[in-house]
Amino acid sequence: MATINDIGVAAAINIVTALAFLLAFAIFRIQPVNDRVYFPKWYLKGLRSSSIQTGGFGSKFINLDFRSYIRFLNWMPEALKMPEPELVDHAGLDSVVYLRIYLLGLKIFFPIACVAFTAMVPVNWTNKGLDRLRHYNISFSDIDKLSLSNIPNGSPRFWVHLCMAYAITFWTCFILKREYQNIALMRLQFLANDQRRPNQFTVLVRNIPSDPHESICELVEHFFKVNHPDHYLTFQAVHDATKLSELVLTRKQMQNLLDYNINKHMRNQSNRPVIKMGFLGCCGEEADGIKYYTSVVEGLTREISEEKQRLRTGTKSIVPAAFVSFKTRWGAAVCAQTQQTRNPTEWVTEWAAEPRDIYYDNLALPYVDLKIRRLIVGVAYFFLTFFFMIPIAFVQSLANIEGIEKAFPFLKPLIEVKFLKSIIQGFLPGIALKIFLLFLPRILMQMSKFEGFVSTSSLERRAATRFYMFQFINVFLGSIVTGTAFQQLNSFLNQSANDIPKTIGVSIPMKATFFITYIMVDGWAGVAGEILRLKPLIIYHLKNSFLVRTEKDREEATDPGTIGFNTGEPQIQLYFLLGLVYAAVSPILLPFILVFFGLAFVVYRHQVINVYNQKYESAGKFWPDVHRRVVTALVVSQLLLMGLLSTKHASKSTPLLLVLPLLTIGFHKHCKNRYQPAFVTYPLQVS
Amino acid sequence: MATINDIGVAAAINIVTALAFLLAFAIFRIQPVNDRVYFPKWYLKGLRSSSIQTGGFGSKFINLDFRSYIRFLNWMPEALKMPEPELVDHAGLDSVVYLRIYLLGLKIFFPIACVAFTAMVPVNWTNKGLDRLRHYNISFSDIDKLSLSNIPNGSPRFWVHLCMAYAITFWTCFILKREYQNIALMRLQFLANDQRRPNQFTVLVRNIPSDPHESICELVEHFFKVNHPDHYLTFQAVHDATKLSELVLTRKQMQNLLDYNINKHMRNQSNRPVIKMGFLGCCGEEADGIKYYTSVVEGLTREISEEKQRLRTGTKSIVPAAFVSFKTRWGAAVCAQTQQTRNPTEWVTEWAAEPRDIYYDNLALPYVDLKIRRLIVGVAYFFLTFFFMIPIAFVQSLANIEGIEKAFPFLKPLIEVKFLKSIIQGFLPGIALKIFLLFLPRILMQMSKFEGFVSTSSLERRAATRFYMFQFINVFLGSIVTGTAFQQLNSFLNQSANDIPKTIGVSIPMKATFFITYIMVDGWAGVAGEILRLKPLIIYHLKNSFLVRTEKDREEATDPGTIGFNTGEPQIQLYFLLGLVYAAVSPILLPFILVFFGLAFVVYRHQVINVYNQKYESAGKFWPDVHRRVVTALVVSQLLLMGLLSTKHASKSTPLLLVLPLLTIGFHKHCKNRYQPAFVTYPLQVS
Repeated sequence: MATINDIGVAAAINIVTALAFLLAFAIFRIQPVNDRVYFPKWYLKGLRSSSIQTGGFGSKFINLDFRSYIRFLNWMPEALKMPEPELVDHAGLDSVVYLRIYLLGLKIFFPIACVAFTAMVPVNWTNKGLDRLRHYNISFSDIDKLSLSNIPNGSPRFWVHLCMAYAITFWTCFILKREYQNIALMRLQFLANDQRRPNQFTVLVRNIPSDPHESICELVEHFFKVNHPDHYLTFQAVHDATKLSELVLTRKQMQNLLDYNINKHMRNQSNRPVIKMGFLGCCGEEADGIKYYTSVVEGLTREISEEKQRLRTGTKSIVPAAFVSFKTRWGAAVCAQTQQTRNPTEWVTEWAAEPRDIYYDNLALPYVDLKIRRLIVGVAYFFLTFFFMIPIAFVQSLANIEGIEKAFPFLKPLIEVKFLKSIIQGFLPGIALKIFLLFLPRILMQMSKFEGFVSTSSLERRAATRFYMFQFINVFLGSIVTGTAFQQLNSFLNQSANDIPKTIGVSIPMKATFFITYIMVDGWAGVAGEILRLKPLIIYHLKNSFLVRTEKDREEATDPGTIGFNTGEPQIQLYFLLGLVYAAVSPILLPFILVFFGLAFVVYRHQVINVYNQKYESAGKFWPDVHRRVVTALVVSQLLLMGLLSTKHASKSTPLLLVLPLLTIGFHKHCKNRYQPAFVTYPLQVS
Repeated sequence: MATINDIGVAAAINIVTALAFLLAFAIFRIQPVNDRVYFPKWYLKGLRSSSIQTGGFGSKFINLDFRSYIRFLNWMPEALKMPEPELVDHAGLDSVVYLRIYLLGLKIFFPIACVAFTAMVPVNWTNKGLDRLRHYNISFSDIDKLSLSNIPNGSPRFWVHLCMAYAITFWTCFILKREYQNIALMRLQFLANDQRRPNQFTVLVRNIPSDPHESICELVEHFFKVNHPDHYLTFQAVHDATKLSELVLTRKQMQNLLDYNINKHMRNQSNRPVIKMGFLGCCGEEADGIKYYTSVVEGLTREISEEKQRLRTGTKSIVPAAFVSFKTRWGAAVCAQTQQTRNPTEWVTEWAAEPRDIYYDNLALPYVDLKIRRLIVGVAYFFLTFFFMIPIAFVQSLANIEGIEKAFPFLKPLIEVKFLKSIIQGFLPGIALKIFLLFLPRILMQMSKFEGFVSTSSLERRAATRFYMFQFINVFLGSIVTGTAFQQLNSFLNQSANDIPKTIGVSIPMKATFFITYIMVDGWAGVAGEILRLKPLIIYHLKNSFLVRTEKDREEATDPGTIGFNTGEPQIQLYFLLGLVYAAVSPILLPFILVFFGLAFVVYRHQVINVYNQKYESAGKFWPDVHRRVVTALVVSQLLLMGLLSTKHASKSTPLLLVLPLLTIGFHKHCKNRYQPAFVTYPLQVS
């Protein structure tokens, strides 16, 4: 078991890493040569232009103004300075609402941490419950002395924890409700103030039934002229342009290769570049590179114009979906909210997402397909979640010192060095998990795409839900209860409903140290790494050195990236879960979580202002998901505390604790009825 | 344990009872004096007038035409003769759809029974699994030999039961889907053909927010003129006329007493009736009855007209709800389906129910009240369900012979008479339950009323759901697993999720005989009793002898009654549950259920044609509930079979059985998406 020293070492390492990242960032960002990496948002907005033209050769690339090095931490207050309404204009509502998740964390956990440290830490510390363990030669650390484990069984002191659970619940619910209200209001205002974008007048119609007598265009026209006579304006058919987009993509790649060959030739005018026609350009006949690619590009250009012509005139490529525009927002709101025909699976209407947000590939999927795909993805997700754990468990078993020593006995002298031992114990389990989790979001996004959602925002929301559930089962439960997720599932099925919270609850205090290191690695160092943007920095400089010829190329050389809701939000939610679960058990975790929320808020606010370029604007449509997951975390924390207390012979408190989840679920239902419609429908009054 | 002889005796008793009821009905119904009791529907429709005027004195009351006695069973074919469309015109869609529940039972169980008896009964019978019990001196009856219990553990014959489970699932789902489709179509056609009733143009608006500057009437007028400018026609405010209706009720009672006194005086002109003014008319000062009641009625009449005047002019009595009418059905459909304002808990719109169907008392309840009331009712229902069982369990424990003999040893010689013993064993458990269940529907209706539903139909639907859940827990589970419902709940909580179906499943075959007697008492004799209408018959004749003076009085003397969805449908659903659960276990139950469905269909079809006068018309809006409950029963049957088979060492089949509930739930979701909207919203296309 990790001692307080291990934690200290891990903390030191992570703090140093985080500080190093921040320092590196502070220095890098004021170098003109990195300007496009750290301020791409301003370039995209046209408010900043390339600074290469001005000054001498040196000052083109390196900042020689030493005064600016003194002010190198200026970015922090700067990031906080921009007021929220301006930020909405600058970066969109999605980003602002996303930042409010971090604020929500601070608002919830700061008062809880204060109360926990003044009221609960003394109550836990001044006991000798753990001392009896010493008789059995079971080691425990000082950190455990701060937790609930230190209180002897059946002690009346558990009433303090009970009161704390009530306080946490009411405070969290209060903050959650206020936040839901604010964000619903912000969303409605944003939609109303928004300069009447066309998609607010437009409804997406899917599953248009086929008719032997009419084409889809005629069908749509007739249907809406009959059923929405006063408000219908026009419609836009959706063409299946998969072939065209493939052709365009291929041409771009070929053009790129052509450019590369021309470049090569220009540098070395004497010999023309030669390519090989066989497998992967490694074997086969030789040919003139420039000539070959020129002819390929020309051929593709011809094909593209033919395909365009075919799409423009033919009707075969039209898919059974259309964007229908109305004369008034009222008409569109009505059409989006009502059922059109007797068969509710035909002529399905919904608000059209932003043009940028629409995921065109899925528009044409028929109703039955959608259901089958959902089933397939459900099954696939089940297997992914419950069998992905095996490699993680393997790595974690290695990460304990004894395991490594057994597996690789020759490493023993090295590991026994005290400093290295601390590193391994403090660091490895967190990192192993993190690396595995890096692969996951892409798989989940592909799953969502396959499932048939029609907007990127909903794809990301679904992927986020799946990611969170994965983290909950595999990171949270998987770290608390040993064994693979499938073994857990099996043992839960064979346990009584009463025993499950007990089994999990009883191991919670033991795992506090593990989660502290996890928070430092994943939260602190991870967030500090985010601001450094090491990967885009390297890619930009590589591209800049080898590929960039024009200003436009340079613009394309940096990928500003997006917030990444599907990966970022589940990560934050894991901290909410940890915070709520440990608040009443081992409050020592809370300061670490508070540091994460504070740091992440500043860092992401900076990134939102200066870097990220959101691909779509859903006007904070993801908030109900955020709210639901925090409430879930709250209920889980209540159930686990109940389980833990009942193993501590404090079963008198169980009925009192049982009230909490019921109240919390009631609260959630109320919030859902009251605020969720603002995120789904569009009230007629404001349209 | 009841033997086949006990069952035989119980069957004989019940068949005789049922036949006696049917015979009595056949004779009573052709007596002119009972005409109003057995054919009130025709009187109400004005298609039949009192037959008392024609013929001599004797034939006024008693049918002397002996030929008609020969044809006394004519009512059965007559009840089946009327074609369905005509029945819709005659009795409304609700009644027709209700009758189709019985037909659904026949359609599902007739083929299943045929297959079960040709395939499964031989498989079960030709085993000696139960014979080994004889060694342990455990008695079993021949009925148990027909069930799955007779197959030895681990026998390959269980594959037959597995195939049967699949066949049952697919057949039931097939029939359910076809029926859902038919009824959705019938509903939409009914609504479309219906002679454009005003409520189809009307929307009920609730939770109108209060405004200090405008009255509710002005508010409604302005709101809809602004938000539905093209379609809004007018509105009807709702007045809180509780006081008025109380006054009217009191006047009716007083008028009745006045009439009684006048009657008394007319019979005996010599002395005027005298009443006492004290407690319950038993003590206190004496007064002239006619004079006193005349003055009271006059006073009340004055008060009523004042109250009417007050309601007509004042605005204080207006409640924050209104009926808003639109120029087109399209406008009403749009308003009912859309969200009106930013706050989804204000200006809540829904289709107005029929005027007859509206439950006015609940129109004015504010949103928060509704939520609180729902919570209170939920808790109350929980306690009702889990503690109501105690008296039933007590009676059931008495109903076993040994229990009675212990409790009342002096009855021993009487009970030991073989015939009486059979009666007690076959009869009592069913009757005890039935009596308890008679009290329940009223309590549940009161709960629904308190919960705040705004139409009688939804009140009845909710009461039916609660009644079904009650029956499921207390009648079904309570009879299978011994102990009170609360003990069960407690033991289920302490059992693993895997073990619950095992515990219940293993007792199922043992309880077949109990449920057979239950079906005979509750189903056969109960339905036959329904057609006799003994209670209305007696009340009518009592009223006719003492109170009736005019033709109008006679009309009011019979209460034709209604189908009673809240009591009838849960009862049918219990038979669906029993049928599906026992189909693969003890198919011997199926013929009893089939007889019930057949008999009930004929009886209720007769009653719908000749007796019942529906209080409202919801156009079959209850079908989704019916569908959902049958699907639930199917899933329960699959889980219990799984539990039963796993105790029989046929665990190889468990994964194959696990697929079935998943498929069934998928099927339910599909049906819900596809057909349920037809019962909730109104598509714009047909409006």
